[in-house]
Amino acid sequence: MISLGCPDRTGIVARISTFLADLGGWIVEAGYHTDLDTGWFFTRQEVRADSLPFGIDELRRRFATVAEELDARSDWRVSDTGERRRVVILVSKEGHCLHDLLGRIGSGELDVDLRAVIGNHPTLGPITEAHGVPFHHVPFAKDPAAKAESFERVRQLVDEHAPDAIVLARFMQVLPPDLCDAWAGRALNIHHSFLPSFAGARPYHQAYERGVKLIGATCHYVTAELDAGPIVEQDVIRVDHTDDVADLVRKGRDIEKVVLARGLRAHLEDRVLVHGRRTVVF
Amino acid sequence: MISLGCPDRTGIVARISTFLADLGGWIVEAGYHTDLDTGWFFTRQEVRADSLPFGIDELRRRFATVAEELDARSDWRVSDTGERRRVVILVSKEGHCLHDLLGRIGSGELDVDLRAVIGNHPTLGPITEAHGVPFHHVPFAKDPAAKAESFERVRQLVDEHAPDAIVLARFMQVLPPDLCDAWAGRALNIHHSFLPSFAGARPYHQAYERGVKLIGATCHYVTAELDAGPIVEQDVIRVDHTDDVADLVRKGRDIEKVVLARGLRAHLEDRVLVHGRRTVVF
Amino acid sequence: MISLGCPDRTGIVARISTFLADLGGWIVEAGYHTDLDTGWFFTRQEVRADSLPFGIDELRRRFATVAEELDARSDWRVSDTGERRRVVILVSKEGHCLHDLLGRIGSGELDVDLRAVIGNHPTLGPITEAHGVPFHHVPFAKDPAAKAESFERVRQLVDEHAPDAIVLARFMQVLPPDLCDAWAGRALNIHHSFLPSFAGARPYHQAYERGVKLIGATCHYVTAELDAGPIVEQDVIRVDHTDDVADLVRKGRDIEKVVLARGLRAHLEDRVLVHGRRTVVF
Amino acid sequence: MISLGCPDRTGIVARISTFLADLGGWIVEAGYHTDLDTGWFFTRQEVRADSLPFGIDELRRRFATVAEELDARSDWRVSDTGERRRVVILVSKEGHCLHDLLGRIGSGELDVDLRAVIGNHPTLGPITEAHGVPFHHVPFAKDPAAKAESFERVRQLVDEHAPDAIVLARFMQVLPPDLCDAWAGRALNIHHSFLPSFAGARPYHQAYERGVKLIGATCHYVTAELDAGPIVEQDVIRVDHTDDVADLVRKGRDIEKVVLARGLRAHLEDRVLVHGRRTVVF
Repeated sequence: MISLGCPDRTGIVARISTFLADLGGWIVEAGYHTDLDTGWFFTRQEVRADSLPFGIDELRRRFATVAEELDARSDWRVSDTGERRRVVILVSKEGHCLHDLLGRIGSGELDVDLRAVIGNHPTLGPITEAHGVPFHHVPFAKDPAAKAESFERVRQLVDEHAPDAIVLARFMQVLPPDLCDAWAGRALNIHHSFLPSFAGARPYHQAYERGVKLIGATCHYVTAELDAGPIVEQDVIRVDHTDDVADLVRKGRDIEKVVLARGLRAHLEDRVLVHGRRTVVF
Repeated sequence: MISLGCPDRTGIVARISTFLADLGGWIVEAGYHTDLDTGWFFTRQEVRADSLPFGIDELRRRFATVAEELDARSDWRVSDTGERRRVVILVSKEGHCLHDLLGRIGSGELDVDLRAVIGNHPTLGPITEAHGVPFHHVPFAKDPAAKAESFERVRQLVDEHAPDAIVLARFMQVLPPDLCDAWAGRALNIHHSFLPSFAGARPYHQAYERGVKLIGATCHYVTAELDAGPIVEQDVIRVDHTDDVADLVRKGRDIEKVVLARGLRAHLEDRVLVHGRRTVVF
Repeated sequence: MISLGCPDRTGIVARISTFLADLGGWIVEAGYHTDLDTGWFFTRQEVRADSLPFGIDELRRRFATVAEELDARSDWRVSDTGERRRVVILVSKEGHCLHDLLGRIGSGELDVDLRAVIGNHPTLGPITEAHGVPFHHVPFAKDPAAKAESFERVRQLVDEHAPDAIVLARFMQVLPPDLCDAWAGRALNIHHSFLPSFAGARPYHQAYERGVKLIGATCHYVTAELDAGPIVEQDVIRVDHTDDVADLVRKGRDIEKVVLARGLRAHLEDRVLVHGRRTVVF
Repeated sequence: MISLGCPDRTGIVARISTFLADLGGWIVEAGYHTDLDTGWFFTRQEVRADSLPFGIDELRRRFATVAEELDARSDWRVSDTGERRRVVILVSKEGHCLHDLLGRIGSGELDVDLRAVIGNHPTLGPITEAHGVPFHHVPFAKDPAAKAESFERVRQLVDEHAPDAIVLARFMQVLPPDLCDAWAGRALNIHHSFLPSFAGARPYHQAYERGVKLIGATCHYVTAELDAGPIVEQDVIRVDHTDDVADLVRKGRDIEKVVLARGLRAHLEDRVLVHGRRTVVF
């Protein structure tokens, strides 16, 4: 898989596709997009590995020249989609997103290497371990110093796996800025509202108070600004006056699960290219 | 049609249904709702007029006693759904909502008495008049005093029809507080975003900047606080990175039209009961 | 909870609500519906148990008189919604619906007494037992006599629990007519298409061949006619030309899970009243 | 705009993009798709006209060589998207789709050259003419010979405009096979169901009888087999037990209108490539 973002100009597609054709590369799926506002070009191409005369490292080395010609700077990537991606999940007490991801992984739908689940409560340990996945309980105190220590412990537990994705599956703790930086472009959060509506705490309560007729969920990259990172996926479900807050919470869970699963899949398949606060999702 | 909101307690349904049964009233459709948070009860009942031994005025007179017993104060209504409702529409230059409403009225789907269309631009005069509806052009200047005069003129043109609904079909002018008061519970606005996201000006531009994956529209009652009135109906449509602002505007129109039409229908059929910032829509 | 279907006439609501009011019954939620085509009336009422002066059996005994007056025959029900419902799930090899239900039950969202899971393959035994639920493997041969024996074994395993719901969570075996009869109104199936489109085998392949732009799932009561029972819930998801059959299968799973979960919840809360091939879902 | 379908093989994208790059062509939007089942490749490319050194005819002449090399046979097209497309609409008595299209054209959203509206009833003449569009009334008798004559008259009225699209906007007459052939790939129908469910007559009645929980509409190319042509666009809307047939008809209209408008837009922008019974919609 090759993905790239660069300033738009004539001949980019020809340059990349000729590069691949010259190697005999068989393109299985190709996406192209030009952002006319910013004059930026994006592409993602899946090439059959067995159609190439060499391995991923050599492809990466050769493509670097093309990327440089196109002024892509660091904004390109060559990866092996056949390689299983490493994932770590952070949770709190609410289990629906974790149950859902474990089910998808257990049934083979999501073919990833789930290295660990970390919880600030022990609640979800048993189900995690029943799926054969290590669970780490890292308690969080309210005292800032103790909290910083807990985050440091989480960071170590995460970083030792060098994960492709850190999933905040209703983690309920705001990541400190240094972790946002360290995990930039890899930390995915599920927020239980249709952002930018109802950012912050208790979004279903906010939604109820405002009397909206649809509720939603948003999967976004974590950035230092709370609930303001680039959005990968969103969806909504209809509610009405017969739904109290508990109903919103229950109905919303089904949206959270599916939005997070879709966002994670897109991220792990390198389908998401970030462009400022916006995303291109091929 | 009878609708009523009152403090919840045992026996309300029995009281109302016995009242109707004693008159031989045939209930065609009945909605009941209890808001457990606020302890408030709501109902809406459609009774076949020909099953009653007298007319609407006598029914209203008699039901007043029931409403009083139930402490409904002014929060009840007895109306004749067979009577065509009077509607006035306010527009600016954008015609999609007006075209849509004229089409629904012209084809008989929306059986209302459209008394007038008022525009702060003359653009939509010809299509309005082609449908046999009077059009009034009231120019709006930026100067506050002139603007107040224009609003006064609009108020007169509207009020002479004593309309059941004043529809702001992309009117693009913020109603002054006194008009919000005068038309409270009768003025419906269509806002081109999924509120509370992107209130105020240029919501599609805001949505584009934020990179949301769905855009929406909201039909709400007009109140003095901009875009904050009780929501009657909302809907959304999926967009992606290939959609620029012009695409959002175009796709959003289809949602605006249908959300406004549904909200207006619910309002005219007396299906909407306002409860603080929330609505019960039977 | 009281539910009832009977011929429509004046005064039914008054009769039922007066019956409840006289007992001091506090109605928490009430649904009424008149089918104008067939002249049939339906209602469902949730009454707070502690507002009644006696228990469920006495309520049932007393309500029988009302039901008889209203010609409801056997078409009424008085049940205790506080009582946990007994459920048995039938599965094959595909685990997504089972994983989803186990997750909902494990997290407390679906508060039911899951008595057993029965599979015609052993595949889903471990995950079932990890949730502390007994799993029975009943192999199915193709030979009709052996198959009949397997169904007899399934029947015994199911019937010993006298379940309120028998859930065919992608069971992949067509129930024989006698089981359809024995479990009438209690056996819920999830079919992986938007019925009546693509009934029978391999619906996603059928959908792909036909080139539809949305795929769906249907939760329905099992009847002797395949995939033709009364529909409880349906939903769809958008697909496009980039989706091959495997993509349809994957995307469809998310719809199957949520449609089955919603249908099962409605069934267990006695919200579903069957009326010929149609359902009223309060 | 260039679109093409051909057998898949290595180097197609390189061939086409190099062809365009050599001419200095600026690609504004590009879509590529490989159907892995049938080994067929599809592309659609929008090139800025002013970036090319010559006009559309020369581009077509030159591209013919590329298309031949790629074995595309007749399955390619070079067109000028800046040229307004010619459209003829066929209607009967139901006006919602026509009102909607006239509104879109009148407001400039759909920038087409609507040459004529033809109705087998005179009902929709006045609104058509109010929009400045010629209306032709061609009565249809039940007698086959007379009907054939009417179709012949319709054919003449249509063909004199050599339209890019013939839109059956609830025309309610089944086109004879020779017209299906003559207008193949240009005649778009809106069917008021989510096909393949409820093909043929009175689909809303069929949907009501079956008790489905969603109703839909389908925009498809007209072929000799009724309601079986390649699907361009579909959508659905939720309904429930409170909706009788008249409600389904009313709610369905909003889906019909938007599905037809989206399908027509995609067709006129040459975004639809037909592949057997399936479509690629870029």
